Amino acid sequence: MPETISDVGEHPMIQRLTAGLAAHPQVLLGPGDDAAVLRIAGDVVVSTDTMVENVHFKRAWSAAEDVGRKAVASAVADLEAMGAHPVGIVIALSVPASETTGWIDGFRQGVASECERAGCALVGGDLARSSEVVITCTVLGELEGRAPVGRAGALPGQVIACCGNLGMAEAGLAVLRRGFSSPAAVVRAHRFPDPPYRQGAVAAAAGATAMIDISDGLVADLGHIAQASAVQLELDSARLRANADQQRVAAALGGIDPAQFILAGGDDHALVATIAADRVPQGWFAIGKVSEGEPRVLVDGREPTPLGGWDHFK
Amino acid sequence: MPETISDVGEHPMIQRLTAGLAAHPQVLLGPGDDAAVLRIAGDVVVSTDTMVENVHFKRAWSAAEDVGRKAVASAVADLEAMGAHPVGIVIALSVPASETTGWIDGFRQGVASECERAGCALVGGDLARSSEVVITCTVLGELEGRAPVGRAGALPGQVIACCGNLGMAEAGLAVLRRGFSSPAAVVRAHRFPDPPYRQGAVAAAAGATAMIDISDGLVADLGHIAQASAVQLELDSARLRANADQQRVAAALGGIDPAQFILAGGDDHALVATIAADRVPQGWFAIGKVSEGEPRVLVDGREPTPLGGWDHFK
Repeated sequence: MPETISDVGEHPMIQRLTAGLAAHPQVLLGPGDDAAVLRIAGDVVVSTDTMVENVHFKRAWSAAEDVGRKAVASAVADLEAMGAHPVGIVIALSVPASETTGWIDGFRQGVASECERAGCALVGGDLARSSEVVITCTVLGELEGRAPVGRAGALPGQVIACCGNLGMAEAGLAVLRRGFSSPAAVVRAHRFPDPPYRQGAVAAAAGATAMIDISDGLVADLGHIAQASAVQLELDSARLRANADQQRVAAALGGIDPAQFILAGGDDHALVATIAADRVPQGWFAIGKVSEGEPRVLVDGREPTPLGGWDHFK
Repeated sequence: MPETISDVGEHPMIQRLTAGLAAHPQVLLGPGDDAAVLRIAGDVVVSTDTMVENVHFKRAWSAAEDVGRKAVASAVADLEAMGAHPVGIVIALSVPASETTGWIDGFRQGVASECERAGCALVGGDLARSSEVVITCTVLGELEGRAPVGRAGALPGQVIACCGNLGMAEAGLAVLRRGFSSPAAVVRAHRFPDPPYRQGAVAAAAGATAMIDISDGLVADLGHIAQASAVQLELDSARLRANADQQRVAAALGGIDPAQFILAGGDDHALVATIAADRVPQGWFAIGKVSEGEPRVLVDGREPTPLGGWDHFK
């Protein structure tokens, strides 16, 4: 029988989860006390993000390490979307008492490697018993003197610029649902996102006035900017072409339109910002423009077929 | 049929949860964007705390408002135990799709009233679907220039001082388990704690060198200070007398020793600190002393019968 968390007990498991954490110059006090202490320059940016087993991931499709990476990456992406840089993260993990310590060790490895990629430190957490795995990551970060980039600042005349993947995780989910496990790139994208770390700050410094990360779908999330900024956002489908993998998946699924992955797919955590056309940073690409008009998102001048976007309760 | 969260949908429910939040001078950006922005003076103290249905509370015993109050209070207590003052809180709430909006509205009311008592603001959150209610509160606070008070600073010669209730929630749990609902004070203490807000900072300013909040049990939590500080902690049972309600409960339960509630009961989130005898603040009372010796907790000079303390996985 594999070792379970109830063989080990709560406090020894917490020690195992927090042993050997890398030092970080801004972490004055890490895990092991009632709270952690961070040194953050200027205003503090904070976001919290939950993942639930069988809602945000399935064990059959994602290894424990993938789940750890996804939890950190999707939480950090919210800070990137404010133009902030992540400093510290706290993770609350609820698991069944029958959970294997192997799964938890794998989760921890995923967390550690993604924190390293994102440039932040794990500084604390909580461990509780539940009937399914629930993970809540809360990330704290700093703006390094910049103003936060919210959703309400889009201005007519700007372009909509994007950095990162669109519709890859959705294509991966589509193939996993059919029982396939390739193309590898899309399946991997479902397992954990590859947010464009440090690009939120780059866009903010370049003059982006509104920004969001794509977690629910490109059209759905741009809808939040359109509403908050009271502008019309016009996407140009010629700049949103599906790649070869996405085309392959769409063909294998009976010839569906691969543009659906890109317009409706979430979970890749690309960053999308509005910015002056001549200030789009390197590594970003324009996918449309901001105009005056009814707050809505158009694709090639037309309202897209209702795509829904992700709603946890519908 | 009562209205459920799936009748309403995720985004409208979030708007309902965050509508009409009180302004707070340190909240530069509240809920509604990818992240919130707080102005925190000096170093940032952060702690995260999870509550799971049927582990930390039962719907049969606690109203939604009680659950909201308990979630905030138990999370803030960790910051108090560092000598910090809470500023902002983010709450991740996972609920079944069949959850009534009435329950969620009640939870929100409990959160709002306890945030007001604690002196902090709700600044963000997440809402997801799960098969049971899971709540994770993450609190950010400030030290106002003081050093954080950890667990490792207890010094031989100091007294152990306490502020707040001990063993009340445990007595309440004991009566609820037997199907009773009185005495009212202990049942109420189980439903939500009454942490001594602002007293953590008072103790820190008075010179406390180690502090913890009692969440797992007095002996168990003092054990953490004994270990971290490498000192012996000697409790004086004459200073830990059960009150009339606790005595009544113990008698009703067949004559058990009411001291067990006080020594082993968690969830009241009293603050316990080590401090010089002549600097114990008003409202605090000495319950023992710090001495050199093997890191352990003694009661009247003897090791208490193993009390366990709460372990989620045992």
